[in-house]
Amino acid sequence: MSNVLKQLETILQQRKQEDSTSSYVASLYDKGLDTILKKIGEEATETVIAAKSGDKEQIIYETADLWFHSLVLLAQQDLSAEDVLNELERRFGLSGLDEKASRTK
Amino acid sequence: MSNVLKQLETILQQRKQEDSTSSYVASLYDKGLDTILKKIGEEATETVIAAKSGDKEQIIYETADLWFHSLVLLAQQDLSAEDVLNELERRFGLSGLDEKASRTK
Amino acid sequence: MSNVLKQLETILQQRKQEDSTSSYVASLYDKGLDTILKKIGEEATETVIAAKSGDKEQIIYETADLWFHSLVLLAQQDLSAEDVLNELERRFGLSGLDEKASRTK
Amino acid sequence: MSNVLKQLETILQQRKQEDSTSSYVASLYDKGLDTILKKIGEEATETVIAAKSGDKEQIIYETADLWFHSLVLLAQQDLSAEDVLNELERRFGLSGLDEKASRTK
Repeated sequence: MSNVLKQLETILQQRKQEDSTSSYVASLYDKGLDTILKKIGEEATETVIAAKSGDKEQIIYETADLWFHSLVLLAQQDLSAEDVLNELERRFGLSGLDEKASRTK
Repeated sequence: MSNVLKQLETILQQRKQEDSTSSYVASLYDKGLDTILKKIGEEATETVIAAKSGDKEQIIYETADLWFHSLVLLAQQDLSAEDVLNELERRFGLSGLDEKASRTK
Repeated sequence: MSNVLKQLETILQQRKQEDSTSSYVASLYDKGLDTILKKIGEEATETVIAAKSGDKEQIIYETADLWFHSLVLLAQQDLSAEDVLNELERRFGLSGLDEKASRTK
Repeated sequence: MSNVLKQLETILQQRKQEDSTSSYVASLYDKGLDTILKKIGEEATETVIAAKSGDKEQIIYETADLWFHSLVLLAQQDLSAEDVLNELERRFGLSGLDEKASRTK
């Protein structure tokens, strides 16, 4: 898995032990599932707006927000980014063999 | 970067050369930005619904759909997953030093 | 209440008795809450895209889709547009006195 | 048109002349289209969450928020609720004749 995703997950797990006043992520856990889901809806809309504005910096920024809050949801549900990457790998037959990558899905 | 994300990006780049009838991704490129953005909105909503249903398998499945269509957007905009991971790395000060991960954001 | 909203609600109630193959609305009821909610998410995204495209005809069209699927949700939940209009009336102090309308909220 | 919608539109038009510090709606106009669209995305997600929570009071509340911010968008674009109701009327052949309401769409 990506080092960044792995490190982020470690941080997101650590935040579960922390006081909700100590970090943004701890406050999201404290507010609960609905608050995390609202953020996913918000960040998806902001990604759409950034793309329609043709602002590439903003697309990167909002997609980072969207992925980040997805990772918070996964952590809150005791799931991991690896579960999602495995699902993508399964769908695309990405077993590490480059030649597979050239097949039409 | 994650091998899966890297391989997926290779596939998504290859699909740009293909006929829109040959794959789902090629048809998304052909339909254009608005169609890709509608999918991001749809998959975000489906992630919310899956989480509220308490269905962990479905959360993984819909998050995979959401990340996948984000990757299609990035590819269509000549951006990459690495841009997004770098942005996350920058935000969280993830320069590879484990001890940093324990700091409160 | 608006005549159009009232008539639409009458239609939406009638569709509850109908076979799911006979109309789009009956098929939405048959597929259930999640399908109706997905449509609300979709139409909201399409409204955002239409507005960012600066296409006023499309804004009207997508807002109509959004309101329509909201009405389907209300009907499916045995709620009515009047409940929503009453809530708006309550918030804005719209008790029918025109002079109130000029007050700053 | 509904009296409530008509009165709300009058208020929303009046807010255009006001200082952005004087009301929530004036501040939305001042922040511009993207802020209004973000609110539509947010309220759609909150409607989905309320419905999945099975909380009817909250469904009414969030649908009111969704319709309200749609009305702000229409006003900002110099469109009106009547345009949307006319579109719904056109689709459903609601020309005021009750018997039409019983036809299968």
